[in-house]
Amino acid sequence: MFVLGIDPGLSRCGYGAVRRGGGSLVAVAAGVIETDPADPLPQRLWQLRRELDDLVAEHRPEVVAVERVFFQVNARTAMSVGQASGLALAAAAGQGCEVVQYTANEVKQALVGYGAAGKDQVQRMVAHVLGLPAPPRPPDVADALALALCHLAAAPLRAAVAAAGGVLG
Amino acid sequence: MFVLGIDPGLSRCGYGAVRRGGGSLVAVAAGVIETDPADPLPQRLWQLRRELDDLVAEHRPEVVAVERVFFQVNARTAMSVGQASGLALAAAAGQGCEVVQYTANEVKQALVGYGAAGKDQVQRMVAHVLGLPAPPRPPDVADALALALCHLAAAPLRAAVAAAGGVLG
Repeated sequence: MFVLGIDPGLSRCGYGAVRRGGGSLVAVAAGVIETDPADPLPQRLWQLRRELDDLVAEHRPEVVAVERVFFQVNARTAMSVGQASGLALAAAAGQGCEVVQYTANEVKQALVGYGAAGKDQVQRMVAHVLGLPAPPRPPDVADALALALCHLAAAPLRAAVAAAGGVLG
Repeated sequence: MFVLGIDPGLSRCGYGAVRRGGGSLVAVAAGVIETDPADPLPQRLWQLRRELDDLVAEHRPEVVAVERVFFQVNARTAMSVGQASGLALAAAAGQGCEVVQYTANEVKQALVGYGAAGKDQVQRMVAHVLGLPAPPRPPDVADALALALCHLAAAPLRAAVAAAGGVLG
């Protein structure tokens, strides 16, 4: 299974693609899409939309995992994060990918075992699981890889529940 | 001047195009883009993105006026409104339109003369100014036409301020 994680943001949008095959997990690509805060908002959103489209087209993931964002968490940037997440979800759906969303707490739960884990714990776990010498920088990259890993961990359970006729959002 | 107003929303996204020429204001097009709440969110955003692209491409407005949304106003739908606004802003910028944003209060101020005006007052004023027999329905359509009218009212002042070296956001 090949999963692209996206940590939506307007100034920095992290992405990380992880492939699982033969029992190993490999980070195939990772980076950030950046837009210049000095540019007008509509131009930044247009640039982000194009780069997200290109990203999905280039890597052709089976699944795109996008962080599910809430207003309460960061009211100051919530609008731009919401706008960026909309672009990511639309880009993935438009190219026929399965699209899933996980909250930051679900990602922490999956990787570290409890939802209140610190960001640094998650980042060290990302490095460990992927056999990287150090947590990827900037943190947006590690967060995106963590989203992909979260889905790779959760996917078997989701599939089992779906097969049993249950519903997982 | 030809302005397309967009009232962003995921279930209903209102739009209204107004042309000013020879001293008259004419509503050239108005309607809503609707997505089905029963569909998955990424599919709905992708549909909205395509329809917004088509809308801008069909009408080729000089300016697209999008409502500037805030979280505080409606926390329950704020995320989907933010996502929809991001798609609208990107669609307009991507097709080379000038893009402006106005808050609901700025629209009320421009059309009715005070920011605390009721929605029904704004809608009646939209009908009056455009010579329509009744306020357009659903209200999302009237709100979108009001955004276009707000820009048509504000544009001369914005141009004068810009010419004088000032900055209007």
